[in-house]
Amino acid sequence: MKLYMPTKVYSEKNCVENHSRELAALGTKAMVVTGKHSSRINGSLEDVIGALERERVPYVVFDDIEENPSVETVMRARALGIKEGADFVIGVGGGSPMDASKAIALMMANPEHDERLLYTKAQVSAQGPVYPAFPVAEVPTTAGTGSEVTPYAILTKNVLPDIVLTTVPGAAAQGAFSHLEKKTKQSISHHIFPALALVDVSYLQTASRSGCIHTAVDTLAHLIESHLNTNTTSYSRIYSEMGLRTWARIKDKLLRYEIGEEEREALMRACTLGGMAITHTGTSLPHGLSYPITCEMGLPHGKAVGIFLPGFIRNYGDQEEVMKMLSLLDFGGVQPFSEYIRQLLGEVSVPEELWERTMDEVLANPAKLKNYPFMLDREHLQLFR
Amino acid sequence: MKLYMPTKVYSEKNCVENHSRELAALGTKAMVVTGKHSSRINGSLEDVIGALERERVPYVVFDDIEENPSVETVMRARALGIKEGADFVIGVGGGSPMDASKAIALMMANPEHDERLLYTKAQVSAQGPVYPAFPVAEVPTTAGTGSEVTPYAILTKNVLPDIVLTTVPGAAAQGAFSHLEKKTKQSISHHIFPALALVDVSYLQTASRSGCIHTAVDTLAHLIESHLNTNTTSYSRIYSEMGLRTWARIKDKLLRYEIGEEEREALMRACTLGGMAITHTGTSLPHGLSYPITCEMGLPHGKAVGIFLPGFIRNYGDQEEVMKMLSLLDFGGVQPFSEYIRQLLGEVSVPEELWERTMDEVLANPAKLKNYPFMLDREHLQLFR
Repeated sequence: MKLYMPTKVYSEKNCVENHSRELAALGTKAMVVTGKHSSRINGSLEDVIGALERERVPYVVFDDIEENPSVETVMRARALGIKEGADFVIGVGGGSPMDASKAIALMMANPEHDERLLYTKAQVSAQGPVYPAFPVAEVPTTAGTGSEVTPYAILTKNVLPDIVLTTVPGAAAQGAFSHLEKKTKQSISHHIFPALALVDVSYLQTASRSGCIHTAVDTLAHLIESHLNTNTTSYSRIYSEMGLRTWARIKDKLLRYEIGEEEREALMRACTLGGMAITHTGTSLPHGLSYPITCEMGLPHGKAVGIFLPGFIRNYGDQEEVMKMLSLLDFGGVQPFSEYIRQLLGEVSVPEELWERTMDEVLANPAKLKNYPFMLDREHLQLFR
Repeated sequence: MKLYMPTKVYSEKNCVENHSRELAALGTKAMVVTGKHSSRINGSLEDVIGALERERVPYVVFDDIEENPSVETVMRARALGIKEGADFVIGVGGGSPMDASKAIALMMANPEHDERLLYTKAQVSAQGPVYPAFPVAEVPTTAGTGSEVTPYAILTKNVLPDIVLTTVPGAAAQGAFSHLEKKTKQSISHHIFPALALVDVSYLQTASRSGCIHTAVDTLAHLIESHLNTNTTSYSRIYSEMGLRTWARIKDKLLRYEIGEEEREALMRACTLGGMAITHTGTSLPHGLSYPITCEMGLPHGKAVGIFLPGFIRNYGDQEEVMKMLSLLDFGGVQPFSEYIRQLLGEVSVPEELWERTMDEVLANPAKLKNYPFMLDREHLQLFR
């Protein structure tokens, strides 16, 4: 088993200011990657720019990252970064800018490659990755993805249906069937650990009630899906156990939305621990099932994942492990857990046709099945809804 | 608060063989640093050499590391390493060769400096340490120090009594009073994280009963002294809590010395977690008090530390925290803990005069007091014995 968590994490008030020197030391010109609004409202963007200016490091801001960022957006940002001569990337915001920042850092460092590099199998020589990325720092402003400490970057890309790809080889590259393309979310093939994560819980204060709940459920899903996973080890459970215990402490308050300073700190800590846990194991079926739902129904990521958690644990093949996991969360059994999730997220109805297609996609994708340690067929997966 | 644990750890049977490529990738010629005997008996040295030969990486072996390695030994090894053109270092054995390997890697990378560099305040520029070390890998063969994941290297050095140093400035450098020198153990001033730790519990099987117990108590001390420490954070407690829970599972078996495969694995895991915990906090008074005892009475390190644990927790200023910590270890209170340590280590009597001097040394050394969060005077420290 392996433990590898090389990101240096500072979690404290004013950490962007306090550690500006280490932030600035990552390169000679920064590319700051963020969304249009929230990082301006919660003060994180201002703090990052202030830190760079104090350290006299030039920078360029790309503030056009959308929710579920696309490959196209990554390539636009890359073009700006190269034009401006930036040599490190700072992601500021939720999972979308943080994930995008890693992909942008990879593409900026490999300017001779086009977007196909993102999904080209990563090659690692004895000296390290064949396609290294520029250094990345992350400044999270939500307590959800844990992207500040994971090597993952999930992008939305357009794909052709299998039927086109198999019957007309080369069609995708030529764009001949682009009118048939569908969107899907997929992690890039490269593992890019942030060098630095600057986690200041103050930036959370402007999160909305639903934003807070959905991101908290995403964290919960990371912890559960890492704890009950083919790749679980005593090392990954260092992080998942501690994260589950931390999440347990705020679960009742989250239901009543009594989220003050202390609860935000616990949420943020659970989030970072969830990131460390999935760094070691990957996620499992609730995440795999969520992507089509998010892309087609537009459900927020955390909610789309959360609706599958009760089914996942109810039908997990080792109920003794499930009960141990639930006791870390301070739930007496599967039933109270399911009831809790229903109360927190409300009822969500996935249209039959979308659900059928989602199951097809997951069952046809070995990458989505490999972290689930038991046999899975359509009948069994049916029970997850 | 900070979390930084950059060492890549593989913990599994045959991990030296399984990850030989990553080991060999650390440089072009290896310096293998070990003791005279145990790494030959437990097979670890043979495995390391086999891995290097398979990867066709040349190497030189320095097998003259003694228990509580001295600055002189480090300098002899450095001379060999430079002569042979080695550019990375592999420590194989217990805490002594692992600690020495870090100091040797520092000195080899800075050949223009003499031994004073070891205890010269480490300077860190924005780009990293001013005096970087060569890459280090560690292959532990005891479950005690956790040195495979810490940036610490504790060496034995000769020092002049304070009275000489203050009244005859420069005397130390000139060696004029070397007949008055005493030995002391002190961490070098530089923080050197191993790049790689290859932890194979098979190498533990040849440990003696007393060796196993003393190293296990050293691990216990790391966990307790990190958990009850000025620098404790929610991050450091990820490691100390999990380590204490792991240690709890073998404590009764250790007393009866019923140590099989499963117990060895738990000890090794607790040891590595203890290393990760003290990486974030440092140790505290039991370690500080132990060094003169080890140097002058020749007590094994773990035993010299362990005898101070009951006094440390009995007199710790926050008994609520102590009780929480003891419950992680599955002890009902301080009394059963003290009784357990006494049964495990037997009675140890520290001569009055040595004890007085030890207290003097600790009370005069701010570095040894700073991790203890409460006021400490002679009367209070008296209670630790």
